Amino acid sequence: MCGIVGYIGYRDAYPIIIEGLKRLEYRGYDSAGVALYDGNDLKVTKTKGKVADLVDKCEREISTSGNVGIGHTRWATHGVPNDVNSHPHVSNSGDLVIIHNGIIENYDALKQELISRGYTFKSDTDTEVLINLIEDVKKQENVKLGKAVQIALNQVIGAYAIAVFDKNKPEEIVVARLGSPLTIGIGENEDEFFIASDASPFIEYTKNAVYLEDEEMAIVRFHKGIKVRKIKDDSMVDTYVQKLQINLEQIEKGGYDHFMLKEIHEQPKAIQDTYRGRLLREQAIIKMSGVEDNMKRFLNAKRFIIVACGTSWHAGLVAEYIFEDLARIPVEVEYASEFRYRNPVISEDDVVIAISQSGETADTLAAIKLAKSKGAFVFGVCNVVGSSIARETDAGAYTHAGPEIGVASTKAFTTQITVLTLMALRLARAKGTISSSDYRQHLLELEMIPSKVERALLSDPLIEEIAYKYKDSRNCLYLGRGYNFPVALEGALKLKEISYIHAEGYPAAEMKHGPIALIDENMPIIVIATKKGHYEKVVSNIQEIKSRKGRIIGIVTEGDVQVKELADHVIEVPESSESLSPLITTIPLQLLSYHIAVLLGKNVDQPRNLAKSVTVE
Amino acid sequence: MCGIVGYIGYRDAYPIIIEGLKRLEYRGYDSAGVALYDGNDLKVTKTKGKVADLVDKCEREISTSGNVGIGHTRWATHGVPNDVNSHPHVSNSGDLVIIHNGIIENYDALKQELISRGYTFKSDTDTEVLINLIEDVKKQENVKLGKAVQIALNQVIGAYAIAVFDKNKPEEIVVARLGSPLTIGIGENEDEFFIASDASPFIEYTKNAVYLEDEEMAIVRFHKGIKVRKIKDDSMVDTYVQKLQINLEQIEKGGYDHFMLKEIHEQPKAIQDTYRGRLLREQAIIKMSGVEDNMKRFLNAKRFIIVACGTSWHAGLVAEYIFEDLARIPVEVEYASEFRYRNPVISEDDVVIAISQSGETADTLAAIKLAKSKGAFVFGVCNVVGSSIARETDAGAYTHAGPEIGVASTKAFTTQITVLTLMALRLARAKGTISSSDYRQHLLELEMIPSKVERALLSDPLIEEIAYKYKDSRNCLYLGRGYNFPVALEGALKLKEISYIHAEGYPAAEMKHGPIALIDENMPIIVIATKKGHYEKVVSNIQEIKSRKGRIIGIVTEGDVQVKELADHVIEVPESSESLSPLITTIPLQLLSYHIAVLLGKNVDQPRNLAKSVTVE
Repeated sequence: MCGIVGYIGYRDAYPIIIEGLKRLEYRGYDSAGVALYDGNDLKVTKTKGKVADLVDKCEREISTSGNVGIGHTRWATHGVPNDVNSHPHVSNSGDLVIIHNGIIENYDALKQELISRGYTFKSDTDTEVLINLIEDVKKQENVKLGKAVQIALNQVIGAYAIAVFDKNKPEEIVVARLGSPLTIGIGENEDEFFIASDASPFIEYTKNAVYLEDEEMAIVRFHKGIKVRKIKDDSMVDTYVQKLQINLEQIEKGGYDHFMLKEIHEQPKAIQDTYRGRLLREQAIIKMSGVEDNMKRFLNAKRFIIVACGTSWHAGLVAEYIFEDLARIPVEVEYASEFRYRNPVISEDDVVIAISQSGETADTLAAIKLAKSKGAFVFGVCNVVGSSIARETDAGAYTHAGPEIGVASTKAFTTQITVLTLMALRLARAKGTISSSDYRQHLLELEMIPSKVERALLSDPLIEEIAYKYKDSRNCLYLGRGYNFPVALEGALKLKEISYIHAEGYPAAEMKHGPIALIDENMPIIVIATKKGHYEKVVSNIQEIKSRKGRIIGIVTEGDVQVKELADHVIEVPESSESLSPLITTIPLQLLSYHIAVLLGKNVDQPRNLAKSVTVE
Repeated sequence: MCGIVGYIGYRDAYPIIIEGLKRLEYRGYDSAGVALYDGNDLKVTKTKGKVADLVDKCEREISTSGNVGIGHTRWATHGVPNDVNSHPHVSNSGDLVIIHNGIIENYDALKQELISRGYTFKSDTDTEVLINLIEDVKKQENVKLGKAVQIALNQVIGAYAIAVFDKNKPEEIVVARLGSPLTIGIGENEDEFFIASDASPFIEYTKNAVYLEDEEMAIVRFHKGIKVRKIKDDSMVDTYVQKLQINLEQIEKGGYDHFMLKEIHEQPKAIQDTYRGRLLREQAIIKMSGVEDNMKRFLNAKRFIIVACGTSWHAGLVAEYIFEDLARIPVEVEYASEFRYRNPVISEDDVVIAISQSGETADTLAAIKLAKSKGAFVFGVCNVVGSSIARETDAGAYTHAGPEIGVASTKAFTTQITVLTLMALRLARAKGTISSSDYRQHLLELEMIPSKVERALLSDPLIEEIAYKYKDSRNCLYLGRGYNFPVALEGALKLKEISYIHAEGYPAAEMKHGPIALIDENMPIIVIATKKGHYEKVVSNIQEIKSRKGRIIGIVTEGDVQVKELADHVIEVPESSESLSPLITTIPLQLLSYHIAVLLGKNVDQPRNLAKSVTVE
């Protein structure tokens, strides 16, 4: 949950590292740091705060020349975010320097051991322990850096992507990964190398990349190329050079104030991209090779188990309703973090569906490994092509939403639902649980979603007005029923993430079992009350809230009358079938949280404490 | 979700009705009212507020004589709680009066119709519509009161328990039920009758009670007894007189300041009462007739589906872990309100377990009916003997916790978990998924729980101190992993319910996917970090919170060292096996919410907006 960047080659390393760190800030922005080698000396600069603060500090304090360097942007796990705890960390001798993404779980025991051997520590971090462990091994065993890293890592329990540099051997950088992603970019003429958590820092320089697998390490040598080995047994690994398909434009803001707003507005197109080539309405066909090729496993499945975290977990909850409703397959939705540790019942007849935007979510990855070890068939739904989850699963479907940079997920959510809806329809058709006419109707309606999302986006100015009225609320409830219950959870999460207002989602009927005690005239309650989906029941719940003087913001179907009379505000959305409504009702909730966060002056794209992809557990 | 009381006989009705309403205040306390007939005239008094306010008003305003009367304590659904919206409601002519627990869903259409026929309405309630509908039917059709009630109810969509009185026919009260409970107490000499939502208002007068079933109505006649008929087709129903086993002492406070505190402290005994006669440790036997008699259905089950609401839903989540872990049966836990409306996959091979303290929860009842209609075997876990759920299910097990009066559930939760643990152990033994030694170990540990709960209760003074420090917090997070994740949800619910502080529970690892954005130096975070149960992982999560300066209250195992160093406060609990730990870790969370609510001057036993049993959906 940190971003790491490294460069070794013929160009100036500093601007490449800084620009790279900016692109990786979605992974954490508690602090940042850089280590540069200028041919004579190693210069380390680091600071609490963002990459912009690091730039100020560097330009004040050091000369930024040099063709080798490593940099880091941090999401704090051990120790508060301050200058001392920032990366890179230097060893006691001052020779070795490291950047690290992950957690060393047994750092305390290792630290005590090193202290007993005379090592001292400036920071509270697990990372400083690791670099001194490497230094100690190197001295004790009298081995080269690569070997020392390997021996040290075999003593470590935890997760990591690291890059280590020795100023006495400036022609190489040693990298390794276990549980956190690491990519090596190879210059077009193989005369320069880039190291990064994902490919975005180097896409303007090269399209050639090697993705390290878990338990692999590599020595990256200037002019000599890279050698990949297994950390455990030192065996050689053949490297596979991938051709990158992402381009620079996709990761820039394109005229919007924030990535999040850009990504909200991209949803009509993103949803279309998701079903393009898969939904062939005229032939009434859904084509998904990952499903088609494994149709037997899907049709024989006794149960689907969906594992995910955060927003993807909410998409999973929507999918539960869709799969059970259309394809009549029992579905269990689990927090990946709970699933992996609780001795769940999994059998070879189960299909596990793992959902993750980044494809790097640590808990979801671990859940996949557990499911595979029990013989279950694992299907991945992720957005980032070539990500760890895409590679670890038996089959899968990409969401094709394009890069999502805003930390609060928006288009990832709607495109995940789109993919899962396609799957459910395909399976329902194969199982015969849906009639031909219903099936065709669903395909038709799905094709109309992008234009309906466009229309929902037109409420933006009204939503901004409502945001202004409620921006100073300290708490907020979100209620929905059926398909829109997970949308309520997701709406609350969005507000929580970027405005820091404590919002909570609930199935509307559960309100009476506790949360209703919170309601008074200061409490805004966002209620999803569209026509299709237990409208009368939701209206009854709204009556109960009004009896307690709560302030109601209703998300209603265009032309609604009844809720309009009861609610303080209504936001209209186009009508759709109940099962597709989450794709539309989500839009105003995204915009509401966006505007509240902007009005409060919060950093929308980089909310405090968060990171885009959670690669530690 | 209101309480109703009626009396017809030879005693003064007023004190019986008032005392009865006080005992039913757990069902709602937004407003209260009473209608008395003194032989000449009908006197109706009602007021916003509690029964105590009603007493003040009555004693100021009316003579309280009369041998017939009905009374009501309200949990508002339609219309704000004020004098006008309070029950009883009188018809336009002034002759008929009604008390009503439930919701009339089509009241708006009926109201328009009545307005067009010249009726006027003083209140916003659905109930005033119903009494005028009855009056209209009585006049139009020229029928007696009983018949008029019957015809009117056949036009109504909704849920109700009602009592209707006509001052021109003062020797009878007409009652009916659909979806809300109604009991008729029959005087020892059959010369007086009591009507109430449950038996507590009349236990000192008689032990004989008839429980109306859904879709039944009764005419209760002074000296003549009761006649029960089906509302739909007017067919006669044979009544079955039950002998009540509850006594007066059980529903009094016994020296504690609040029922909730009394019930928290009753838990060692309540848990013991739950397993008494069922857990025979020396023989290594668990005896549960409801399980034994249906062993085949349980063993053949492909899946358990647990349906519940609120605190019972949390007990269900704990049970999911227990059943899957010990008995290796896949479990799905559902909000009853969502399950009943979402077209879930249920088959004849499924076992549905319904959990409800009161046994009257409307959504849970409806879920049971749905499951039965699909052929599933339904097992009930409730506390109130003879409740609707106990009667609707195919088999079940009572929790034997004794009456729970505090609106915030405490001993209901721990005894539900106890019953479900016994079930899981019994089934695990039958399925052979647990070794004989493990099984015996579990039985032994379960028997030690009451004394461990006693020990956990000793932290009360420390918890009161901590409560004092955090009582002014506006928000709060509760984190746990594994078996203690649902405990975190339950702890948060308790605080929400009685202190009105917005508290939210999360699986500890999910924090990083959003809620961590809320954390700053003002945010208290209660973390369950006992030794057995992913201790190291929870410690990592605590580190992450400390990095964001959150204030940590750790629930730890006696003798803990590591968390003590990191947390701002720790509360120690005795060690236990992981699967039984929820029974112990819950205790400090209950006490914490209790003390915060008391320090804030909140009404602990009757929190605002809530009702004990939610008999409307």
